Amino acid sequence: MFTILIDSQKQIPIYQQIYEYIKEEIKNGNLVYQDKLPSSRGLASHIAVSRNTVDLAYSQLVSEGYIEARPKSGYYVCDMSQLVDIKTHPVDTVLEKEEKKQQYEYDFSFQGVDMNYFPYNRWRKLLKEVMINDNSDLFQIGHRQGDFEFRRAIKEYLHQSRGVNCSENQIMIGAGSDYLLMLLSRILGTNHKIAMENPTYLSSYRTLKELGFEIQPIEVKEKGMDIKQLEESDASLAYVTPSHQFPTGTVMPISRRIQLLSWARKGENRYIIEDDYDSEFRYLGKPIPALQNNDTEGKVIYIGTFSKAIAPAIRISYMVVPKELMKKAKATLSCYSCTVSRIDQAVLGRFLQEGYFERHINKMRKIYKTKHDRLVKALAIFGDDIRILGESAGLHLVIELKTQINEKRFEEECEKGSIKITAMKEFFIEPVKQESSKYLLGFARLREDKIEEAVEKLYRACYTCV
Amino acid sequence: MFTILIDSQKQIPIYQQIYEYIKEEIKNGNLVYQDKLPSSRGLASHIAVSRNTVDLAYSQLVSEGYIEARPKSGYYVCDMSQLVDIKTHPVDTVLEKEEKKQQYEYDFSFQGVDMNYFPYNRWRKLLKEVMINDNSDLFQIGHRQGDFEFRRAIKEYLHQSRGVNCSENQIMIGAGSDYLLMLLSRILGTNHKIAMENPTYLSSYRTLKELGFEIQPIEVKEKGMDIKQLEESDASLAYVTPSHQFPTGTVMPISRRIQLLSWARKGENRYIIEDDYDSEFRYLGKPIPALQNNDTEGKVIYIGTFSKAIAPAIRISYMVVPKELMKKAKATLSCYSCTVSRIDQAVLGRFLQEGYFERHINKMRKIYKTKHDRLVKALAIFGDDIRILGESAGLHLVIELKTQINEKRFEEECEKGSIKITAMKEFFIEPVKQESSKYLLGFARLREDKIEEAVEKLYRACYTCV
Repeated sequence: MFTILIDSQKQIPIYQQIYEYIKEEIKNGNLVYQDKLPSSRGLASHIAVSRNTVDLAYSQLVSEGYIEARPKSGYYVCDMSQLVDIKTHPVDTVLEKEEKKQQYEYDFSFQGVDMNYFPYNRWRKLLKEVMINDNSDLFQIGHRQGDFEFRRAIKEYLHQSRGVNCSENQIMIGAGSDYLLMLLSRILGTNHKIAMENPTYLSSYRTLKELGFEIQPIEVKEKGMDIKQLEESDASLAYVTPSHQFPTGTVMPISRRIQLLSWARKGENRYIIEDDYDSEFRYLGKPIPALQNNDTEGKVIYIGTFSKAIAPAIRISYMVVPKELMKKAKATLSCYSCTVSRIDQAVLGRFLQEGYFERHINKMRKIYKTKHDRLVKALAIFGDDIRILGESAGLHLVIELKTQINEKRFEEECEKGSIKITAMKEFFIEPVKQESSKYLLGFARLREDKIEEAVEKLYRACYTCV
Repeated sequence: MFTILIDSQKQIPIYQQIYEYIKEEIKNGNLVYQDKLPSSRGLASHIAVSRNTVDLAYSQLVSEGYIEARPKSGYYVCDMSQLVDIKTHPVDTVLEKEEKKQQYEYDFSFQGVDMNYFPYNRWRKLLKEVMINDNSDLFQIGHRQGDFEFRRAIKEYLHQSRGVNCSENQIMIGAGSDYLLMLLSRILGTNHKIAMENPTYLSSYRTLKELGFEIQPIEVKEKGMDIKQLEESDASLAYVTPSHQFPTGTVMPISRRIQLLSWARKGENRYIIEDDYDSEFRYLGKPIPALQNNDTEGKVIYIGTFSKAIAPAIRISYMVVPKELMKKAKATLSCYSCTVSRIDQAVLGRFLQEGYFERHINKMRKIYKTKHDRLVKALAIFGDDIRILGESAGLHLVIELKTQINEKRFEEECEKGSIKITAMKEFFIEPVKQESSKYLLGFARLREDKIEEAVEKLYRACYTCV
């Protein structure tokens, strides 16, 4: 008979103590294949617990396959000959260090946004309203493309501010542009060669490459992607940033846009992926319409994000898919649910529809313009030794140093001086084209009153390397 | 000279009116390639606006590529010969109907959860706390695998309740299991044949197939996936639901788990994908540990979700990747940011850490158990004509009708009577194996006090088809 030590003072339920005891006996080999267990009635009376308790322990053991019930006979130990394989494995308790981004005193990083002006209170208020009003519905599964009302809000915003023409049905909401590219790779298949501007946004380059696309780098000339090179390549997709080329900052003129669209029309499977990543911020005149605005044949797949305009952690991006392509995409898309929570969709939807987004953008545009202008002004200390490139748009500009400097030393000097800058050459798709002495200066994260100081530090770093 | 009608009463800024006018003139062919524009000073004085205003309009036209500035000469119209291509395209204003799910009076659907008990107030309160305390940080970009604290909360939960052994570094957070499968397809590559239980959760089947995997259906026997068939196949991945096989409801016993693990050990690239989709709900004894608990060789990729336990719209799932595989995966993963918003991570993290999740699960387990038991009891009216299959776990059970019925008519009768049931045969991977007269009865969405009525309706529908 079993000698189970039942401790009714323990936190562990009695049935579980019985279960654990028998399991151990099996594991230790004290109970082997074909052994018969005591009847539940017998065991219950032996250890003075209720029969239900023993039954529960036995059921658990049966469920997990340690013992089996034979009708009209009783409980028997199963074949555990391979059980020796089972041991708990040691868990790696040494934690990898969290990747920690280095903090710079003078942060000319081209990424990130100025979060000091994020409308936390408004966001919180909308969140509260959403949670109170629409409670239960928002916790049920939503539409796979994103909630209709939210897509409507985005449609209207895109039409008004970017000239994008589409219906709600063509909009897909997704958690981040990289996710949308992933989805797109499922819709189009990866049996495409993608022409990419060179230099380009390397993060998209890496994602597209990782997804299995073959990449064809195409030179960026004054008007953007070189059309002749594109025509000569056998690319069927072209990934472009026409409103504000990354990283050079050039705007693709209308003539080049037309050429690009006619390139796309020449092949049934040709598409243009327009990444409109920071078009909200233009400091001169009105925003330049999206390339999608000129597309009459359903050749432009338009991708945008709220990461730049609101906050990096708002993982909400959108993709406008041409109508015909959308029809074909439905079957693919039926496998994937929307990756953005409905609560976030509702909050951002209201933020758009009630005009807060526009106000926020206007405010941020002013703030960034001030920083931009102040940076340009401060850079005057370099005199004729630098040239500022790129349109007055976006959250970074490009400088070209005209004096001969030792670049490697310059970059080391910056690092030493806690200055974060990024060399243009880092944005070239391999093989790296040496684009000497061009640097990106982002100004979103720079404190306004630190700009002159930062530029002065940069100036000193530069002239110790001449 | 231009005759621009400037209307200073209009909402539209004056510079924009000038810009629009000139753009139209170019589009209409009134201004052609090489035409010289009036100087900004001249035009300003002509139409009586400031020179800055005209400069702004010209800059915009230059930016968009309609005109160009020639140094020391003036502004000239660009080559617009292909401009005829540009017209605004009609937008589809007829909206597709939103897919609307049919509402059933007696909803035995196997999907969905009972949302009447969702702790809205608690969730709202945590959300409020999170928004107040950790504001700004949460709007900056987070860790690509998910925030460390949140992963720690999940690690602890999984260890305690599912016996899963892992470190935070092995956990990936993602917006939905379908997204995690997508990510997994990037990590493993799709050059694999996946063995899947047949019948299985078709939604995963479709996703894996869509992702490009070749699928090898393997029969589900009493103990789960047939190991002999698996060994004979050339599959290198096996997708299983060991804790509660979907849809049959069987639990994979320890002996089969060991066999499965030794199958995986036989090939370097072999892995088991364990989908632990509803293991929180077990009504008898304690939960059965996850298969991952028995894995000593890093062969089990464990996937779970909060959709069943909390709410379908909580798009938060997790994947535990074996340590060695995680090392290899880092490069792939570096291309993708986390798809779950940091606010949601923070709220759910607290929900877990402060014990609310456990309490919620305990409450729901009781509620579902009551429904489950009441359903089983109500089904007694069928007498010996049905058999109830599957473990007392999860949110559905399976009935097998032993009387000969005309299935097609039975299903039509149910539809007519507003009864939602799902036939087992629908879960077979093609070619459909006729698994006659088995049906899934979900009970999560059934109102408790309607269960007897629902079963009675089902009974009548059944007996009109004998």
